[in-house]
Amino acid sequence: MNVNGRHYRTIWLNDNGWAVDIIDQTKFPHVFETVTLRSTDDAAVAIRDMLVRGAPLIGVTAAYGMALAMRTDASDAALARAYDQLVKTRPTAINLKWALDEMMKSLSPLPQSDRLWAAYARAAEIADEDVAINQSIGRNGFDIIKSIAAKKKPGETINILTHCNAGWLATVDWGTATAPIYTAHDAGLPIHVWVDETRPRNQGASLTAWELLHHGVPHTVIPDNTGGHLMQHGQVDMAIVGTDRTTAQGDVCNKIGTYLKALAAHDNGVPFYVALPSPTIDFNVVDGVKEIPIEQRSGIEVSHMSGLTRDGRIETVEIVPRGSRVANYAFDVTPAKYVTGLITERGVIAANRVAIAKAFPERAV
Amino acid sequence: MNVNGRHYRTIWLNDNGWAVDIIDQTKFPHVFETVTLRSTDDAAVAIRDMLVRGAPLIGVTAAYGMALAMRTDASDAALARAYDQLVKTRPTAINLKWALDEMMKSLSPLPQSDRLWAAYARAAEIADEDVAINQSIGRNGFDIIKSIAAKKKPGETINILTHCNAGWLATVDWGTATAPIYTAHDAGLPIHVWVDETRPRNQGASLTAWELLHHGVPHTVIPDNTGGHLMQHGQVDMAIVGTDRTTAQGDVCNKIGTYLKALAAHDNGVPFYVALPSPTIDFNVVDGVKEIPIEQRSGIEVSHMSGLTRDGRIETVEIVPRGSRVANYAFDVTPAKYVTGLITERGVIAANRVAIAKAFPERAV
Repeated sequence: MNVNGRHYRTIWLNDNGWAVDIIDQTKFPHVFETVTLRSTDDAAVAIRDMLVRGAPLIGVTAAYGMALAMRTDASDAALARAYDQLVKTRPTAINLKWALDEMMKSLSPLPQSDRLWAAYARAAEIADEDVAINQSIGRNGFDIIKSIAAKKKPGETINILTHCNAGWLATVDWGTATAPIYTAHDAGLPIHVWVDETRPRNQGASLTAWELLHHGVPHTVIPDNTGGHLMQHGQVDMAIVGTDRTTAQGDVCNKIGTYLKALAAHDNGVPFYVALPSPTIDFNVVDGVKEIPIEQRSGIEVSHMSGLTRDGRIETVEIVPRGSRVANYAFDVTPAKYVTGLITERGVIAANRVAIAKAFPERAV
Repeated sequence: MNVNGRHYRTIWLNDNGWAVDIIDQTKFPHVFETVTLRSTDDAAVAIRDMLVRGAPLIGVTAAYGMALAMRTDASDAALARAYDQLVKTRPTAINLKWALDEMMKSLSPLPQSDRLWAAYARAAEIADEDVAINQSIGRNGFDIIKSIAAKKKPGETINILTHCNAGWLATVDWGTATAPIYTAHDAGLPIHVWVDETRPRNQGASLTAWELLHHGVPHTVIPDNTGGHLMQHGQVDMAIVGTDRTTAQGDVCNKIGTYLKALAAHDNGVPFYVALPSPTIDFNVVDGVKEIPIEQRSGIEVSHMSGLTRDGRIETVEIVPRGSRVANYAFDVTPAKYVTGLITERGVIAANRVAIAKAFPERAV
């Protein structure tokens, strides 16, 4: 999407034709800086230190990390070394492993002399596939937004609430939850986005707001406490969120707090949609609340907050009294009954077992 | 309640017998400092600059501000001057005006020579009345906690979730929502409190956590997004919150985000109680969602955050990209159907028009 009027992906080939440029996402939302990756080491650091984040973007960065390895040494040993180095950077990122396996599958059968260009080609393909999926999600979600717009007066603002960052910064372009928003905005519909701050890591305030700001989509950052009040007063036309994992029956595991917004949407008749690339559907899990273990992260994310000081430094401050315990559950599960529909690359699917199995017959258990 | 093992109220007479000591609440949660008010000016500054906060505490501080005025001049003119000066410090604080009116009613009929001691006596009385009301709320809420404890194994922890600060720091002692908690804790019940951080002003993280920490009540600070997940997993036995205004039919206006927790409680069969001194029931309002205007506060409270730096300074940092709009709705309304009961000084009352009118027949319209 656009930054300062110019189109960017989150990862792209440098003008020299071989190095890989990324946006340093650790500096958000106050600084926009790109970084050039020149080696597998650079790629590994970028993933480990979260200069890049979001499953699809991590996968593509790892794929390019393999390509960079092939520049100096295209041997089987070098291939294995690069794989091992990259797969360890974020051990729980399933998409990272998937992308590396794809690279291995493409490269290992080839003679060494063909591996370099094949690696760049396959990495580019993985990036393009992500973009294509998100564009499909965007088109399918756009249809929903158009039908909501059709019930309003011409030119009347369509208010969409989102939680966390399922935006283009987590993907190669477009994002998942944001794809319908960007598609509708670019088509000229008057969209306004309520951006949940998304405590404790503030991905809404620092990433989603930044994205929307730079692409020119009108938006307002709100504390996570606010959505219910807005829905009670007719100020939200729909909610769209992303998901880390959706179960076979349509339960949605997403950033902590998603469930509370779904409850408020249900209580006020506001449609609540989840946008997802279909690989995030886990057909081995049925009841999300009972079956999905919820990661607990460091309490520092709750007790400390980073931001920009008046004199332009990034500073971290403590906001909880020393001695008070803190807890930091990263995700929650929204039961399928509160989900209006799943916006996938194959269309909008009802959040129930039959509809999901019917849409993905090749994967349903 | 206790701070560092010693019992405090939020306001008390200095050892010299005439000055008034308060806790400087602007320094929370990192610094505990008391301040001595020696004049009406001091009292006015303490209220205006929010060294004291919470309706009951503001009222008592203003009452003592009148008493301090009487030390130098007990004339009718001085009385009127002090009233005018104090009433302007927080124009929307209804309890401030009430306390000042009470002082005027007591003092103006008296000869000047009797006013000084009468003023101190009446101010002390207003403080004691607040404590008595909160103790009654504490006893009535304690009965509910005991009945929950009775259904658990002996010694098993009772988990109570609260939002914002309806604690002793907002009152003279005990607090409203916290009164049942302190009462149960002091009686030896194993209480653990989930403290909602309460964005954007963080009253949970900075005030409620501080109170509970210093009184020795086990507690955990959580992002506001977390309560639903905890309730889904049986980790919350009840919720108790305060209220700024409750309507004749039992709708509850309280800090933004209360409604979302009430929805989650309802969805998971968790009892959701509201603790309140009965004067906060507004019999002139029926439908809270439709009738109560919601204050919008400065966006700075959302876009900026203050805390303690590593080297011990209080610093404010910006956490939203410049250019992004922010919104800051201060309260929301929880419909009565999601409220299990109202814990008042007259007992626990169902949140409906008939029950409320029956409990307060002298005030019902």
